[in-house]
Amino acid sequence: MNFDLARKLRQDSGSKIILCVLDGLGGLPRPATLRSELEQANTPNLDRLASESELGLTVPVGIGITPGSGPGHLALFGYDPYEFDIGRGVLEAVGIDFELGPDDVAVRGNFCTLDDAGLITDRRAGRIPTEASSVLVERLRTIKLDGVEVLVEPVRDHRFVLVLRGSGLGDAVSATDPQKEGVTPLQAEGRDAASKLTAAKVNEFVTQARELLSGEEQANGLTLRGFAKYPDLPQYLDVWGLRAAVLADYPMYRGLAKLVGMTPLACSGGMEEQIATAKEHWDEFDYFFIHYKKTDAAGEDGDFNAKARALEEFDRHVSALRALGADVLMIGGDHSTPARMAAHSWHPVPFLLHSPLVRGRGGEFNEDDCLMGHLGTFPAVEAMPLAMAHAGRFEKFGA
Amino acid sequence: MNFDLARKLRQDSGSKIILCVLDGLGGLPRPATLRSELEQANTPNLDRLASESELGLTVPVGIGITPGSGPGHLALFGYDPYEFDIGRGVLEAVGIDFELGPDDVAVRGNFCTLDDAGLITDRRAGRIPTEASSVLVERLRTIKLDGVEVLVEPVRDHRFVLVLRGSGLGDAVSATDPQKEGVTPLQAEGRDAASKLTAAKVNEFVTQARELLSGEEQANGLTLRGFAKYPDLPQYLDVWGLRAAVLADYPMYRGLAKLVGMTPLACSGGMEEQIATAKEHWDEFDYFFIHYKKTDAAGEDGDFNAKARALEEFDRHVSALRALGADVLMIGGDHSTPARMAAHSWHPVPFLLHSPLVRGRGGEFNEDDCLMGHLGTFPAVEAMPLAMAHAGRFEKFGA
Repeated sequence: MNFDLARKLRQDSGSKIILCVLDGLGGLPRPATLRSELEQANTPNLDRLASESELGLTVPVGIGITPGSGPGHLALFGYDPYEFDIGRGVLEAVGIDFELGPDDVAVRGNFCTLDDAGLITDRRAGRIPTEASSVLVERLRTIKLDGVEVLVEPVRDHRFVLVLRGSGLGDAVSATDPQKEGVTPLQAEGRDAASKLTAAKVNEFVTQARELLSGEEQANGLTLRGFAKYPDLPQYLDVWGLRAAVLADYPMYRGLAKLVGMTPLACSGGMEEQIATAKEHWDEFDYFFIHYKKTDAAGEDGDFNAKARALEEFDRHVSALRALGADVLMIGGDHSTPARMAAHSWHPVPFLLHSPLVRGRGGEFNEDDCLMGHLGTFPAVEAMPLAMAHAGRFEKFGA
Repeated sequence: MNFDLARKLRQDSGSKIILCVLDGLGGLPRPATLRSELEQANTPNLDRLASESELGLTVPVGIGITPGSGPGHLALFGYDPYEFDIGRGVLEAVGIDFELGPDDVAVRGNFCTLDDAGLITDRRAGRIPTEASSVLVERLRTIKLDGVEVLVEPVRDHRFVLVLRGSGLGDAVSATDPQKEGVTPLQAEGRDAASKLTAAKVNEFVTQARELLSGEEQANGLTLRGFAKYPDLPQYLDVWGLRAAVLADYPMYRGLAKLVGMTPLACSGGMEEQIATAKEHWDEFDYFFIHYKKTDAAGEDGDFNAKARALEEFDRHVSALRALGADVLMIGGDHSTPARMAAHSWHPVPFLLHSPLVRGRGGEFNEDDCLMGHLGTFPAVEAMPLAMAHAGRFEKFGA
């Protein structure tokens, strides 16, 4: 929805909202059984909750569009993913809990293998292990650039993050990654004055890096893509009037939530600890975003039974989640990750909203029953205004 | 969807897509039986396919909007019919397989009857038969205009197409058809310099035509409306990355498909030949648009049983259609043509999409079951991104 309207309608009712995201929640039926992961899983607590909730299916970004984690979560936070685009460099940085500032330009780096002529022979440098690339990252940290601070962090395998910190740096910079082999890495080019400055520094960095890496067999080169500054996203407190907290094991999701102004609460021990931490900080916040990763991980692995088990594991925490006593409890997903596809997909995602003001019509928590629910199939970005309404946090529109 | 996004997301998966349009597919129940044409028709093959597909209803253009063939098809091709407007002159031209070029301005013409004072007494010249108007068209072809080539083609009854061919002609030209009787035809007027040139030539054409027709009893005058140049539509290969072919008996649908860059494959012997031709050219194309006219023709005639029979006839080709082995098979309609209305209508249109990645939930192929399907009721223009997703032809959006 329009954020000016949200600012105009919002009021403080003192009520609490929980958004619980089961990553990659939606699935597809297995041909042998015609049952999806949710239908196979034994989830009595979710099903009981569903029967007392409004059900629906969220379209994460658009019909036929398979979202990454960024757009999938932004939508559930109430931000139109087409309007608010988060650059790859920023996502990589927040994904490793790197604290980006307003003067930073972040970019994703890949170590690669170059031949004697400087042509790329392996875009991923044989997927060298994180330990090996960490050593190389240490070496890259010795690079000095005039007037710009250089920060380098390992991510995983051949991937790292480069952050240039300095005033006046733009991020409209072309990738040095040609995204194919048999050619040389490209020169970075800036589209405007500020970005030309960044590009010049980047090219200087690459030149120095090439020397530092020249003795390496596999990782003797690097490519960069996805230059991005910290995005200036409207903040939760300003838009929705909510003091929001995030409870997530994975840095990526904490980072995404921080971009919209949520406060990260320390927890790394899974759902039990996440719920306990929420309880501990209950009075300090109006909104809690709780992230559950295992459903997506199992889906990405293509492990149907593991995904069903991840759902069953989540189910055992539903009573504790309800016991927090939120006025509005939403359970949904940022996208589908059907185990059969072993990948994110575009399929609409089961969603439930529980509050004292729902139109229930029964049903269990699965794709088919959610399709028939009172929320129908709707854009994920509309979940937030819906929650605001159920929470008594939106005034009447018009007289 | 936004075409820049489509260009960015598309990838070549090597998969094949079929769009099969049953013209005017949607219907309305007969009060006596409470069954629609689809419900009355015995279509075991369509029903079996439906039970293995995702079902939905497409809204052709907008709620309450009854589309012509142009917007109805454009939407299914993925083009927003409000954004891409095809002028009447162009539709008439493509409807008779007239090969329009970039220097052409096409306009629809009607023979009419004028009284001695030059007032229109019959806007359709008594609906003179095509044979009679063809003779008059021959006469109009003798008209010479300075610097502009004159092309005239009969369409049907009192209707014809006039094409002016010459450089620098605009199409922002007002109609000479006042759309009522008892008044004289209007002078054509151009809105800009290029269109003023067209208008001048048009008025000269009309003056000469009046002389050539002056001896006629019924068709002694003419009116023109819908000036239009060949529209510069984004092409299928560019937007979706698809080599597309069209298999249609009727020139109108071939012409519409050609406007978006589909290659017409020769066939005029009905579904059997259309499917055989698709098979023959299977390796040359990624996308096949197959058009079936009989459902609409029967609907327009107001013949409920004939429309049901047309559906049954189509049903006998479903096995052959499936045997082509497309990765994604869509069956839908450009609009509804309920036999009870004997006209196009705004009612949402049954739609099915078959692929290995569907969430099936059973059901037959009719209005009620499609309403309950996993695709729900959705804009026809979204069918194309959905097909791209199922075909593995869209990359993930965002990281």
